[in-house]
Amino acid sequence: MFHSFFQKRTVSSDTKIVMLILDGLGGLAREPGGKTELETACKPNLDWLASQSALGLTVPIGPGITTGSGPGHLAIFGYDPIQYEIGRGALEALGVDFDLQPDDIAARGNFCTVDENGILLDRRAGRLPTEQSSRLVDLLRTIRVEGMEIHIEVVKEHRFAVILRGTGLGSALTDTDPLKVGVAPMEVRGGDAASETTAGLINKFIRQARRILANQSPANMLLLRGFDRLPKVPPYSEIFHLHAAAIAINGMYKGVSRLVGMDVLDVPGNTLMDEFSTLEQHWNDYDFFYLHYKKTDTCGESGDFDGKVAAIEEYDAQLPRLMALNPDVVIVGGDHSSPAVLKSHSWHPVPLMVYSRFVRADGIPEFGETACRRGSLGILPAQHVMPIALANAGRVAKYGA
Amino acid sequence: MFHSFFQKRTVSSDTKIVMLILDGLGGLAREPGGKTELETACKPNLDWLASQSALGLTVPIGPGITTGSGPGHLAIFGYDPIQYEIGRGALEALGVDFDLQPDDIAARGNFCTVDENGILLDRRAGRLPTEQSSRLVDLLRTIRVEGMEIHIEVVKEHRFAVILRGTGLGSALTDTDPLKVGVAPMEVRGGDAASETTAGLINKFIRQARRILANQSPANMLLLRGFDRLPKVPPYSEIFHLHAAAIAINGMYKGVSRLVGMDVLDVPGNTLMDEFSTLEQHWNDYDFFYLHYKKTDTCGESGDFDGKVAAIEEYDAQLPRLMALNPDVVIVGGDHSSPAVLKSHSWHPVPLMVYSRFVRADGIPEFGETACRRGSLGILPAQHVMPIALANAGRVAKYGA
Repeated sequence: MFHSFFQKRTVSSDTKIVMLILDGLGGLAREPGGKTELETACKPNLDWLASQSALGLTVPIGPGITTGSGPGHLAIFGYDPIQYEIGRGALEALGVDFDLQPDDIAARGNFCTVDENGILLDRRAGRLPTEQSSRLVDLLRTIRVEGMEIHIEVVKEHRFAVILRGTGLGSALTDTDPLKVGVAPMEVRGGDAASETTAGLINKFIRQARRILANQSPANMLLLRGFDRLPKVPPYSEIFHLHAAAIAINGMYKGVSRLVGMDVLDVPGNTLMDEFSTLEQHWNDYDFFYLHYKKTDTCGESGDFDGKVAAIEEYDAQLPRLMALNPDVVIVGGDHSSPAVLKSHSWHPVPLMVYSRFVRADGIPEFGETACRRGSLGILPAQHVMPIALANAGRVAKYGA
Repeated sequence: MFHSFFQKRTVSSDTKIVMLILDGLGGLAREPGGKTELETACKPNLDWLASQSALGLTVPIGPGITTGSGPGHLAIFGYDPIQYEIGRGALEALGVDFDLQPDDIAARGNFCTVDENGILLDRRAGRLPTEQSSRLVDLLRTIRVEGMEIHIEVVKEHRFAVILRGTGLGSALTDTDPLKVGVAPMEVRGGDAASETTAGLINKFIRQARRILANQSPANMLLLRGFDRLPKVPPYSEIFHLHAAAIAINGMYKGVSRLVGMDVLDVPGNTLMDEFSTLEQHWNDYDFFYLHYKKTDTCGESGDFDGKVAAIEEYDAQLPRLMALNPDVVIVGGDHSSPAVLKSHSWHPVPLMVYSRFVRADGIPEFGETACRRGSLGILPAQHVMPIALANAGRVAKYGA
């Protein structure tokens, strides 16, 4: 309903919408009554923008649900993240620019370390450098298994993507990663007839890989998980009539952007400053920009409260560069919360502000969890953010007469 | 969707969740600008807990909908109360520990008083004592109607449960209770072919009952209402992976707890103190406890504002006994509102607090309707409470990557 409604009613305009996603933005205070990471940060530009904006808190998937970045992004991009479930493998493959076909099956691979009996010692082989991984991936590429094509792509450090292509493959496949050390990697099993056959082919591949990697160190084995096909997702151009661009450093975010039909822009470097430069450079080429910032989540997940505070302050310093471009609508939010206190993603609603000339600005001069709770957008499903942004951009025609 | 989602993602943990339900908790001020029952009560322990909690207001069924206790409980237990509609009869039978079978049809019975023309004088026969009812139930048990088994169970005072068992019975049956005096009880009518036949059998039963009771006083007739079968409800163990116990005095609450698969604990007595003692005694045996308190509703329904205030104060005095057990998550809420001003259940959202180490505590040091409106949980469907509690208890795995 949602998409067909907007598909029929979004209209062209020369307005520009910018969605700034600070990954894992939401946080928690270190003690009851204390301040969260966002509330602790000195961020005059974000606070000023908040005073001109409507504030709220987004619920990415549903109450009590902790989400990964993939579904969290799909939700704030305006898609039902349950309906369009994406496997990790598919996202990983998208993230490295692999031209994933509708029938391909993708999985995430890790190089790992096993002992002489095949027992896992390190699930990530000491996070070996990407250059070493590349060399091992070249070895894996020599493997042939009759019945399917195998594509292997380097991701980063110990991570790679495996893509299986062939006719009649099944995608109901279990992981080989036991998610703990001290046990052996598992065989892949199939959940239906086609998948059982496919599982057999993959297990052949794994046995050959084990032989080929046996004398390598520290990575002498591999783990596969998250086998999946791409969901079919209607693109931004179709449902929102937006010519959209994504600015991101990390693969997953490029992947999910490409999935919804955004152009993924080249960022010449890997800093936030480089991302904002890319935004400036392409300002005239698109009418929607998604800009992703990873550091807030990285610090949250590693329990680095002060680091997350500093990451937000670093972000704040770049914001004037966007405002100088005079955007019509600015969304500042996150794909989920990652409180440093929990050292993980969490279920907590995520601070949001929507700036435009036409919002009912709340006049609350602070961007933070407590401030956003008092905002006029209330506690809203992340999926509702894009319709509100489109409306503020003058891009939604009236319903009925 | 909701249940299958959590069924796949809830995980085991050694955390404990306690749900404290004050029946009919929500209230209204006696005059505009005044305080509700909850706001009037002196309740230092609940107020302290509020300061450490996230606050909100629950909507049991939907906007403007006044609910009974059965659906109100199903909702806050995490079930869709429209999808899982339970008839009063089924709840009544469950409440007296009758082993209700999937095909059984249950109804709630009242002994009543009629005049010589069969006109209702008192729908409850002066709320006759349970011992008298028991004797009359023994008389009713002598009745035989070909085509179905009839089970009759004493409930309390004028109330009893009737359970019909047989093949091909229909459950689309109308009530005989006209809900007012001065008219005669109605015949049962059936809404489909099977139910028409069943209605005929029940009317035979009622005619025999009337003959048998004719010379009794004050109860000389019966009323039947709420014919229904049990809905199929997936149990707590399955959808939330919780080993759950219920602590309640009154039958209906035991019934709805048993329906969702909770163990109903024996309470040695019928006071709130006895209920908390039961909680203490079984603390190590379960990971979820539901504790029901009836008095708030009883006072609300009878228009006793001060009594409801006193009931809340009585409750407040017991709360430290729970906190001494060091629960991980505490939910304090209600199944619906029962403002003394209205002398009935009402549609008003119900105060809620969720306490845990990991909530974003609102720092609002008061538990009350106005305070809860400012809380970070917002105005939420009662069904969302359990997911939030499960998340805070570390019992929900991440969705996606």
